[in-house]
Amino acid sequence: MNMEKHPYRVRGFKAAGGACGLKKNGAHDLALIFSEREAAAAGVFTTNRVQAAPVALSREGVRRGRARAILANSGNANACTGPAGMRDARAMAQLAARSLGVEPEGVLVASTGVIGAPLDMGALETGIPRLAEGLSPDGLREAASAIMTTDRFPKLSVHEGTAAGVAYRIVGVAKGAGMIMPNMATMLCFVVSDIRIGAEPLQETLSAAVRSTFNRITVDGDTSTNDMVLVLANGAAENPEPRGEDLAAFEQGLVRVMGDLARMIVRDGEGATKLVRLEVRGATSAAEAERAARTVANSALVKTAFYGGDPNWGRIMGALGRADIDMDESLVDIWVQDVQIVSRGMGMGRDAEREAALKMAGEEFGVTIHLNMGGFQDRIYTCDLTHDYVSINADYRT
Amino acid sequence: MNMEKHPYRVRGFKAAGGACGLKKNGAHDLALIFSEREAAAAGVFTTNRVQAAPVALSREGVRRGRARAILANSGNANACTGPAGMRDARAMAQLAARSLGVEPEGVLVASTGVIGAPLDMGALETGIPRLAEGLSPDGLREAASAIMTTDRFPKLSVHEGTAAGVAYRIVGVAKGAGMIMPNMATMLCFVVSDIRIGAEPLQETLSAAVRSTFNRITVDGDTSTNDMVLVLANGAAENPEPRGEDLAAFEQGLVRVMGDLARMIVRDGEGATKLVRLEVRGATSAAEAERAARTVANSALVKTAFYGGDPNWGRIMGALGRADIDMDESLVDIWVQDVQIVSRGMGMGRDAEREAALKMAGEEFGVTIHLNMGGFQDRIYTCDLTHDYVSINADYRT
Repeated sequence: MNMEKHPYRVRGFKAAGGACGLKKNGAHDLALIFSEREAAAAGVFTTNRVQAAPVALSREGVRRGRARAILANSGNANACTGPAGMRDARAMAQLAARSLGVEPEGVLVASTGVIGAPLDMGALETGIPRLAEGLSPDGLREAASAIMTTDRFPKLSVHEGTAAGVAYRIVGVAKGAGMIMPNMATMLCFVVSDIRIGAEPLQETLSAAVRSTFNRITVDGDTSTNDMVLVLANGAAENPEPRGEDLAAFEQGLVRVMGDLARMIVRDGEGATKLVRLEVRGATSAAEAERAARTVANSALVKTAFYGGDPNWGRIMGALGRADIDMDESLVDIWVQDVQIVSRGMGMGRDAEREAALKMAGEEFGVTIHLNMGGFQDRIYTCDLTHDYVSINADYRT
Repeated sequence: MNMEKHPYRVRGFKAAGGACGLKKNGAHDLALIFSEREAAAAGVFTTNRVQAAPVALSREGVRRGRARAILANSGNANACTGPAGMRDARAMAQLAARSLGVEPEGVLVASTGVIGAPLDMGALETGIPRLAEGLSPDGLREAASAIMTTDRFPKLSVHEGTAAGVAYRIVGVAKGAGMIMPNMATMLCFVVSDIRIGAEPLQETLSAAVRSTFNRITVDGDTSTNDMVLVLANGAAENPEPRGEDLAAFEQGLVRVMGDLARMIVRDGEGATKLVRLEVRGATSAAEAERAARTVANSALVKTAFYGGDPNWGRIMGALGRADIDMDESLVDIWVQDVQIVSRGMGMGRDAEREAALKMAGEEFGVTIHLNMGGFQDRIYTCDLTHDYVSINADYRT
């Protein structure tokens, strides 16, 4: 296989993206990913108590550990749609299954878009068979485009690995926190690989990889009813079942692909102009390191300061102070990149802040907070809070 | 006493506001409130782990249960200033005490403004004695103005009550969530009353009143290092110690004054254009009712929808879903004022949403969420998230 000509091809997988009319502007709104052989399936789903119908359905599907296809639509979230929503999600799976000649249980379904509106099943009845006809080994890029809502660019990432010397690929596509006329930011990610692996180790590596990637990004602290990460591994690489180092290497591959996609999602966060890597060190427990990082990363005051390129460490101290963590203000050190702006809880002065402001003028920078209390750390990617975020989300749904 | 001529006068209290040079633009930045006799004192302070020096000092002062004066400056928060900050806070109390001829322990101190910068003690050494000379029975309005930062208007509220037939007054002044060049939103509130009451019942009624007033508002979910509510009751009314119904009536008076000030603070929230009364009913516990209300009230997606006047109930459902509460999506009802937009988890349709949008076009409206799970409820006042919020907070400190 020629990598440069087919950068997103994975053995035994086909995909397609197209328009079926769910988006009123005629933009692509339907994506299909198909495995020519039965694949091991794993998934991670939103923790929101309000869950869209396709989340419930795909959770069931993943529990079986095997699947053949992923069908995703944008333009309608099929959330808060009651029993009719569940019927529609099942009907989507059935339509895809009929077109692909597989069992409906083998089709995982995902949706993103307007909440609380019924799906236009007429559009899907015509659109799904047409999409299945267009399946191609190079279709993942089109699939990535078709799941976009207000995303500014399609998100794909690829990794090549080996297990017992046998080469395999991991390709992921994702959509981020964006909405158009609609209601909620939804994160969807689909990963396909030709590695041969059991469903159980696949689920374990996925869950571990999600913790350090998608669960370590934030745009505005709001989670969605539709968030979903699905992985299909079809074994076309014919490698021996990976164990030990090979399994660890596969997990690292997943982390690379999903970390890549996660950072793309933050960079493409609604209205975002800056990607910030926020690191908390020296916490007394892993949970406290995470809580401190999340509180700072989601503070509206901190995020507007990022937007303004302002090394406003007082806001960071304030956010730490309400994070419900063990801390001593007089031990805190803070850096922007390699510029220290706070030492032992006190500012390093105007010159340091001016230097830090220069670092913050870029599109990407890191902020490191050392609590100097213990040995635990965590890292979150966040973005700035901007005028455009407000514009995008204040617009009345049309 | 003529109410109309002296709307904010309280027997036995004098106050003053003026400029001493802490604010570079020459605006008023120093306020003093003085009780001619020793007053019962109570206070409630920020729960932020990072606490400004004046918070630590006034917490000590309030523990004694008696005080004579409150000295507050704006323009500098005296926070994250290390041991020097504590020395400066004590020096402020000493300067006021000397000018007033009272013990330094009897002076409570509060600060709001830039974080991490040393106080200009030279300005205060000149300013405090001058301010003490200008004390007047009608000075509370000037004091309210002198504690403002980016507040658009001074905040005062008055209540008249009786205890055993003896009339007394409660007057409160407050400043809200605003900042100018500086760093953190700070909420300060000072209440004076001529009621005669012990320090213990005063603290109990204050703590209760704070729970249903200042602890039930949010602008952006960020708490400050300097938040403080202080009450002085000097007994000039000579009423018998209030008990039973009289004590309850005093608490209701505090709730009225502080509730009034709390709503003013939200209405004057940074960039805010709408005041929203958010009510959650039917929760399975008081804690869950509160958590649900706070999560919705602080959701950036919900607050931008308020700004856009968009009855975007999907975002409310999404916020409820991540509030870590016992809920069943198919039981949730939502109203905007008296217009129901969600029934049993599903939208009531375009006409209802159009009618709700009309209600949301005003500057004040209520949103009621009924979880239909249990018998507990809570209420939070919040505001919208606007372009101006981002502008105010992204501006680089000058």
